[in-house]
Amino acid sequence: MPTQHFRTETITSRNHPWIRRLRSLHNRAERDRAGAFLVEGVRFLTRAMEQDAIIETLVAAPELMNSPFGRAQVRALRRSGVRYAEVTADVFHTLAQSDDPQGVAAVVRQRWARLSDMPAEAGGCWVALSAVQSPGNLGTLVRTCEAVGAGGVILLSDGPDPYNASAVRASMGAVFATRFVRSSLSELTRWKQRHGVRLVGTAPSANTDYRQVAYNEPVILFMGWERQGLSVEEQAVCDTLVRIPMVGRCDSLNLAVATSLMLYEVFNQQRERGAA
Amino acid sequence: MPTQHFRTETITSRNHPWIRRLRSLHNRAERDRAGAFLVEGVRFLTRAMEQDAIIETLVAAPELMNSPFGRAQVRALRRSGVRYAEVTADVFHTLAQSDDPQGVAAVVRQRWARLSDMPAEAGGCWVALSAVQSPGNLGTLVRTCEAVGAGGVILLSDGPDPYNASAVRASMGAVFATRFVRSSLSELTRWKQRHGVRLVGTAPSANTDYRQVAYNEPVILFMGWERQGLSVEEQAVCDTLVRIPMVGRCDSLNLAVATSLMLYEVFNQQRERGAA
Repeated sequence: MPTQHFRTETITSRNHPWIRRLRSLHNRAERDRAGAFLVEGVRFLTRAMEQDAIIETLVAAPELMNSPFGRAQVRALRRSGVRYAEVTADVFHTLAQSDDPQGVAAVVRQRWARLSDMPAEAGGCWVALSAVQSPGNLGTLVRTCEAVGAGGVILLSDGPDPYNASAVRASMGAVFATRFVRSSLSELTRWKQRHGVRLVGTAPSANTDYRQVAYNEPVILFMGWERQGLSVEEQAVCDTLVRIPMVGRCDSLNLAVATSLMLYEVFNQQRERGAA
Repeated sequence: MPTQHFRTETITSRNHPWIRRLRSLHNRAERDRAGAFLVEGVRFLTRAMEQDAIIETLVAAPELMNSPFGRAQVRALRRSGVRYAEVTADVFHTLAQSDDPQGVAAVVRQRWARLSDMPAEAGGCWVALSAVQSPGNLGTLVRTCEAVGAGGVILLSDGPDPYNASAVRASMGAVFATRFVRSSLSELTRWKQRHGVRLVGTAPSANTDYRQVAYNEPVILFMGWERQGLSVEEQAVCDTLVRIPMVGRCDSLNLAVATSLMLYEVFNQQRERGAA
């Protein structure tokens, strides 16, 4: 991609190298390689700016932009010197994944942290995921992480990509505010022992109700794959195993729902200690 | 559709009237008109049978069925006299919405109840929805309704269809265990007054924390559209307005998450009263 920072001519070709490059970010392998992802729409651009995300490229289709707020954002970003291109509506539609695009998209740098660089006390509560099947679920639980001020999300497999378009959308922009870490079970185990963080796993067979535990110290909520749950090996490294009670023939909850119930239990206890 | 109850010949044509009829149920208007929906896969058929759902037609593609349990289910249903057709794998693929279909599908009757027929005390807790944008969200919250033994779900607009394929999938079969009611705000208001049911709405501007309320009497949890929330008119008929606290720049939670947090708060209080 050229390094020039201002473009005034409008890109009219769907096959322009910039546009091909942007479109390639719909693909997971390309996102991983570039360490960046594509964000679309005024709300998401606003969230990126609020959270000081690194915006690599800004693309706007003036024909599609009917929000004065969106136009003001584009002007502000251009003044800050971000790489910018104007495109026709036709070209924009080849990038956009929404049916009714707002005419603004940006390439944003992914933000990954290393577990070893993490302050254990940050946020007081982390989520570790052994596997997630649905990007929408991942985005939804990231949204709850932001709502309770969780420290971040630790992904123990290469499977889920928090920068997948569905995950970003479901997060409502919480991906910009969330620290993501890729780690392994053995690294996580060493880290939590070194820092005195309690690893709390959920398992339907656990004896302890999730509300019977006092979450006083920093805690990692370890959530398993939806119906399989945590493996025997994963359960073995947990300091505490809890279950979320259910009645009827129901044997599991949606992963984002289960994680949110756990996050709010920790958050509610923190709030009550703060108020006491 | 013919009324014969046994068919032994295999349907080999994608355009066979039975197959066209089944396929038409992917369409909302056809589902509404038929009062039925299409269910796919061994797990969902099992859930339908457990909950005594009315199965109108069973379709199986023996070539695709590699689960002995699934085959046993089909035999059991055929013995019960359900209308049955065998189809080729090719024909089944024109019905199936999953990429790797298990070769069994059924037309199941929808179950709607009238609010006036509902015992107010049933379940002790209902969910009323003013609008839902995503069928997946609806299915996910129905799944939590089953987990806490909620009385049912009251839909105040024609928008969401709990029998949409994405909703059924997200519910993991909880749709079969859940009572659905379509109603209006005025009917709901009269019903809750007559039966002494407390209508609890959620609003970000409410002063009361959702955990500060004692949910002693039967309660309807009134959930608004995700970001807009409940309208002024909807808030006005609520007996109590609560908010779910959030930190940071987050201004709302996923609808299924917010509903699940409310449902579990009521459920946890019920459990604690039961244990006391």
